[in-house]
Amino acid sequence: MQDKEFLMIPGPTPVPQSVLLALAKHPIGHRSKEFSTILRRVEEGLKWVFQTKYDVHIYTSSGTGAMCSAMGNLVNEGDRVLCLIIGNFGRRWAKIAKSRGADVIELEVPYGKAIDPCDLEKVLKENDNIKIVTMTHNETSTGVTNPVKELVKLVKNYGALSVVDGITSLGAINCPMDEWGIDVLVSGSQKGFMIPPGLAFLAANDRAFEMHKQCKYPDFYFNWTDYKKNLDKDTTPWTPAVNLVVALDEALSIMKQTGLNEIFELHKSNAKLLREGLKDMGLKLFVEDENIASYAITSVLPPEGVLVPDIRRVMKEKYDITVANGQNDLKDKIFRMGTLGFVSRRDVLTALASLKETIEGLKK
Amino acid sequence: MQDKEFLMIPGPTPVPQSVLLALAKHPIGHRSKEFSTILRRVEEGLKWVFQTKYDVHIYTSSGTGAMCSAMGNLVNEGDRVLCLIIGNFGRRWAKIAKSRGADVIELEVPYGKAIDPCDLEKVLKENDNIKIVTMTHNETSTGVTNPVKELVKLVKNYGALSVVDGITSLGAINCPMDEWGIDVLVSGSQKGFMIPPGLAFLAANDRAFEMHKQCKYPDFYFNWTDYKKNLDKDTTPWTPAVNLVVALDEALSIMKQTGLNEIFELHKSNAKLLREGLKDMGLKLFVEDENIASYAITSVLPPEGVLVPDIRRVMKEKYDITVANGQNDLKDKIFRMGTLGFVSRRDVLTALASLKETIEGLKK
Repeated sequence: MQDKEFLMIPGPTPVPQSVLLALAKHPIGHRSKEFSTILRRVEEGLKWVFQTKYDVHIYTSSGTGAMCSAMGNLVNEGDRVLCLIIGNFGRRWAKIAKSRGADVIELEVPYGKAIDPCDLEKVLKENDNIKIVTMTHNETSTGVTNPVKELVKLVKNYGALSVVDGITSLGAINCPMDEWGIDVLVSGSQKGFMIPPGLAFLAANDRAFEMHKQCKYPDFYFNWTDYKKNLDKDTTPWTPAVNLVVALDEALSIMKQTGLNEIFELHKSNAKLLREGLKDMGLKLFVEDENIASYAITSVLPPEGVLVPDIRRVMKEKYDITVANGQNDLKDKIFRMGTLGFVSRRDVLTALASLKETIEGLKK
Repeated sequence: MQDKEFLMIPGPTPVPQSVLLALAKHPIGHRSKEFSTILRRVEEGLKWVFQTKYDVHIYTSSGTGAMCSAMGNLVNEGDRVLCLIIGNFGRRWAKIAKSRGADVIELEVPYGKAIDPCDLEKVLKENDNIKIVTMTHNETSTGVTNPVKELVKLVKNYGALSVVDGITSLGAINCPMDEWGIDVLVSGSQKGFMIPPGLAFLAANDRAFEMHKQCKYPDFYFNWTDYKKNLDKDTTPWTPAVNLVVALDEALSIMKQTGLNEIFELHKSNAKLLREGLKDMGLKLFVEDENIASYAITSVLPPEGVLVPDIRRVMKEKYDITVANGQNDLKDKIFRMGTLGFVSRRDVLTALASLKETIEGLKK
């Protein structure tokens, strides 16, 4: 039905009406006092979501841009980077590090699993000179959440820097940057932040900034020093996506009204409702272990004799709900349902009822 | 007056209502057939504006991002890059090239002037191994348009690659990429394209792609090979700023209805109207030579005894018109009035009348 699509993919996610209307406001000059006031408020809101005292840089880019910013401000040719890989987005860290000439070590586990801290410790023990360890908090390609708190602690014990992809966890799953000692944390706009794609965020602590100072060819577009210098004057080095920043201001105000813990609880209860409903339907979950199952995205195996592309097609055509396919090796093997951002209990019930009818129809 | 601001800065520029409303549409999934259809249409529209048969990459970034893409896909450490500098944006090319480890040669002229092709030829003759020559088509920091056609021809004769910043010229001033033999051309969304900031564009011809293949550490976020591979499948490597692409689709449709030559004529006649009006007021233009004066932005010297900050303040507070200050050394020495994008003859007359009252008031 025209204009009826409901997004249950891991981004873009549903956007509240007031945020869409804020987006449609005529842009104002980005070097004006008015915009600086908005930027300052947005900055404070982002710090609140990141649970950090450090600056949060606002980039005009996708989440991958913020990942490139992390590697592009830290890595010199030949630096040893350990990448913890539990899915496509963990693998992306390795690709980006290699694109900077890094000496990449990969610790990869079968997709659907999380990194075991013991395995990480073994690799840290066996390999000298690991400068950076990258990891994904919430791996959307599989629907697994890594035990970031434990992993980061180990990384610190071994003197390396922790760089964490919180793109689909920030504003959905608890990820207190400073408390957990995360050195660099990145995120993106079209996920828990409930605004359309186009902005990405990065916070780096003092340890990370120290390492940045040793970077021979820091990335120009995402340069941390330039961002910091400009942020101190409530501005950005390049023209920002003004309308998206104004929309983010509105979205952060909604998030503050809800409360951070309440947002996490809502994601948890929606994901649990979805998982229980799927199991009641007789469907098999790709991630069975409740301890590592994501509260943002749930991967589901199709029932025997029913194909993933058919499920996705009927869900979209008949019920106006878009769910995601698996990626790469998991394509057509799983489908993924997002409960990320502006999703209510009603939406989850609706999706379950629609999926039930879809599968019954396809089985006939 | 609330919501009354009219932007006469070199970006963001005024945005048509239908474009703002398109921006406010709920995002759709970026891996959907619907979005691919929009992307294909936008791609064709961009090729039409770029006047090229080559692909135009659409980045989620500011215009500077597209400049970084050019350097980041071509330059290896030690490569010799000649940067033609007639203002801040010409200087930016040099900074970006240096950030990649390039051996940068600068040809700089006093701000307010354009590059003389004879001067370029001299530098090309005197220096071996120049791999790339960067230039700015329309330098918004001064209001000067470079003779890109002549410059590019020389660059080609000497076997180097021409990389042109068309950020404020595309969709405003004629810049036929293929006809002039430009190898790499970049632009941005919040200028002649009449949409808010957040997208940047780059087209590279076959010669440029050949050089790209020799790039040892191509930029990951802006990687040309990845963009090309995805564009061939009507998609993008990373999540694009969906709403801005939908807005661009609407803006390009408006541009097509107008016609490319008509758009150039409109910019020319508006700029000429503005320049004549300013001179009639007794004001001195920073760029007196009509042959190099920009049709997108006009730099003006304040009358004796009147300060630039006061002019800008009164223009904004009393007439809701935002004009730009000079940059760096030109700060408070000139002010700059944009006639770029969605600006009509009425807007120019309004600005002249408002400026007249402003200056009369300040002189009292």
